Amino acid sequence: MPDRKPITQLNYELVTLGDELLLGLTVNSHLSFIGQQLGRHGVTLRRNVTITDDAEDIAAQFRESWARSDVVLMTGGLGPTCYDRTREVVAELLGQKLVFHPEIEKAIELRFARNGRKMTPNNLKQAYAFERGEVLPNPNGTAPGLWVEQDGKVLCMLPGPPNELQPMFNDQVLPRLAALGLLMEREAYVQVRTAGIGESALEHKLQPVFDRHRGGLVVAFCAHAGQVDVRLSSPTGKFGEPQLRQVAAECAILLGDDFMCFGHDSLAMICADALRAGDYTLAVAETATGGLLADAFANVHGASKCFAGGCVCYSNESKSQLLEIPDEIMMQHGAVSPETAVAMATGAAEKLGADYALAITGYSGPCGGGGKENPVGTMYLALYSPGGVWSRKLCYPGPRSTVKQRAINAALDWLRRELVRGAGCSDGSVHSHCG
Amino acid sequence: MPDRKPITQLNYELVTLGDELLLGLTVNSHLSFIGQQLGRHGVTLRRNVTITDDAEDIAAQFRESWARSDVVLMTGGLGPTCYDRTREVVAELLGQKLVFHPEIEKAIELRFARNGRKMTPNNLKQAYAFERGEVLPNPNGTAPGLWVEQDGKVLCMLPGPPNELQPMFNDQVLPRLAALGLLMEREAYVQVRTAGIGESALEHKLQPVFDRHRGGLVVAFCAHAGQVDVRLSSPTGKFGEPQLRQVAAECAILLGDDFMCFGHDSLAMICADALRAGDYTLAVAETATGGLLADAFANVHGASKCFAGGCVCYSNESKSQLLEIPDEIMMQHGAVSPETAVAMATGAAEKLGADYALAITGYSGPCGGGGKENPVGTMYLALYSPGGVWSRKLCYPGPRSTVKQRAINAALDWLRRELVRGAGCSDGSVHSHCG
Repeated sequence: MPDRKPITQLNYELVTLGDELLLGLTVNSHLSFIGQQLGRHGVTLRRNVTITDDAEDIAAQFRESWARSDVVLMTGGLGPTCYDRTREVVAELLGQKLVFHPEIEKAIELRFARNGRKMTPNNLKQAYAFERGEVLPNPNGTAPGLWVEQDGKVLCMLPGPPNELQPMFNDQVLPRLAALGLLMEREAYVQVRTAGIGESALEHKLQPVFDRHRGGLVVAFCAHAGQVDVRLSSPTGKFGEPQLRQVAAECAILLGDDFMCFGHDSLAMICADALRAGDYTLAVAETATGGLLADAFANVHGASKCFAGGCVCYSNESKSQLLEIPDEIMMQHGAVSPETAVAMATGAAEKLGADYALAITGYSGPCGGGGKENPVGTMYLALYSPGGVWSRKLCYPGPRSTVKQRAINAALDWLRRELVRGAGCSDGSVHSHCG
Repeated sequence: MPDRKPITQLNYELVTLGDELLLGLTVNSHLSFIGQQLGRHGVTLRRNVTITDDAEDIAAQFRESWARSDVVLMTGGLGPTCYDRTREVVAELLGQKLVFHPEIEKAIELRFARNGRKMTPNNLKQAYAFERGEVLPNPNGTAPGLWVEQDGKVLCMLPGPPNELQPMFNDQVLPRLAALGLLMEREAYVQVRTAGIGESALEHKLQPVFDRHRGGLVVAFCAHAGQVDVRLSSPTGKFGEPQLRQVAAECAILLGDDFMCFGHDSLAMICADALRAGDYTLAVAETATGGLLADAFANVHGASKCFAGGCVCYSNESKSQLLEIPDEIMMQHGAVSPETAVAMATGAAEKLGADYALAITGYSGPCGGGGKENPVGTMYLALYSPGGVWSRKLCYPGPRSTVKQRAINAALDWLRRELVRGAGCSDGSVHSHCG
């Protein structure tokens, strides 16, 4: 077991294997997932190294990572193909033998049989485990995970497919780490989420709070498409959790409506909670955001109580076909205009019998903008509420996916503010239409 | 300039800085983007290391990476805050001085002025660059990139925000690397994309081709939610590009309809091309996939010519409100049933006047499944075409996002096969309805 350092000082290192990560063909979701899970248990991953599937690279990297870390997590390279040599390479460096486990063989055979297939011999490789170690059963695939405690350190090797790794990590790895005293019962930080305020304005606004709590408080900002998170932590341990929560509360008070929540809830979650609290329903209509505004709500657990649905009006005709928007509006004002945005929101609300509606129409790029007045990145949002309907123009530069995400966040934040304040014209918006 | 090794043997290393990556709060999009761009120029990134913003960690990592690599790319840590110490740490290790550049200061001032703000003094930090190096102007932000050629190696430091990094990398970094002879004019591999065939069945099917070309050919498989890519490469250089293309062509012939394309086109792109070729239009309707099926088409460049739009029918009522599906169908068969899927596809096609339509309804989890018959992960797809309308049942285990992506890929692949073969009942599907 690792020495009894404070948990915040432990060296956790994640080694992710795979050419497809280095070639940018797959996003490194293991880093995001494991980093997040550890963060929720008070640990900040110290380092993540991604290397190729080459056996020499794996050996060199494992030697280095094992020497400097308390806990090494490795993902990938446990499969049946001839390229998967991780197990052998690591066993040699640990000075351990690999031992054949008949019960793993049986589990793999059973798995194949259930899928109506016969196990091929190369799969037998996966039935070998370290002589002094534990096997982590894999209910979702053939390769089991491997767990070793040696030299006062922990090594955990996990299968590459996310649907195998994720449940194994939560159900088997986290409890083992906790039992060894290598995790905390709280997050590594206290997070204050904000929306609708830029990073530098936010820093400026919160400075008085930070000035009151100098020394030992570490503040970090993280911006996601128009939404900025503030992380408060104290790696030296000078501030305990109650004090960090106190600082967070002071930030929230100072921020007013710009404060979104503590923790990790999404804008759509917060909107859905507020809609449910008022027994309201929501509809959406979108063009340039292609369905992602609807998806933001569809991802909220239990959203069907407040989210009626939405329309993706990609062609001009679809706006009249689905939402019965009069052709004259689009002919007179164009598909990307405040008038069309308002007609889309109104149409969606009426068609779906919803109390509130959001609409987005615009040019998300990379080409096909609407000339000087409405260049690529121009988005018109509309909000329909029991108190009226309004539109607002936004223009964001940047790659298409950023433009889309910023427009969605701006729309969600608008609805959030409206719901927080109750019905009525929302402050600071451009009221092209109000009625 | 690096020694004249073969380009495939060059050591490219990417160092990404940021606690938010290690805490899983932001996905490492720099790895995906840079890895992909380099891969398209014949280079496989050898290693990616993600470390915290801590100055000591940065120093230790830079020393290590610089010693073993030909090209080191670093992202992040160039901003104005007190935590951004990367520039100073690296200058010291390179034995270089940082020199103040008045023209960078001017550019930062101008940028602030354009946004109606005054530059704060901490921004001046960003006007310092290496005495023996180049400055890469940043048209999208304040921190310029930095470029150094020293000790026969290249160092390139890039700003952290993706909308600043990506254009700088494509417009300034790639041309510089090419001018030094450190990039190829072709991809690092030839890729064969397949759909609708599992990884092991694919390996088995293609084995005769690989057996014919033994020695020097490296084959890698990469599965993405029901779609498997085969990468063919020859790191030793034994197979030139024409031979790799020849092997790829042999694979394609053997695969028949399971072959999707060479390269990187998405299923939606291939469907959109086939739709445009036949002057057909498409509509979609979805529940559990929340708008992502529509978004797959909305992301295809120029899709408005063939993609009419879609409906996200989240509530039961929305299916009749938007698509005029008779209430009896849902009452009799349930919202998650082949009959409802067929009615959704038909309704979408008729409502939007489209030639083809896809519909998806199901339970994507994590809870709210439909009992024993339709557990979480059950999805009914429907395809409407000029030749008829059919439905198909799928059941995938796994996390919600995987279930959604697999259902979308299965629907797109079904449409692709239908379009490839021309109108008529598609082979191998469950024809609940045909008319």
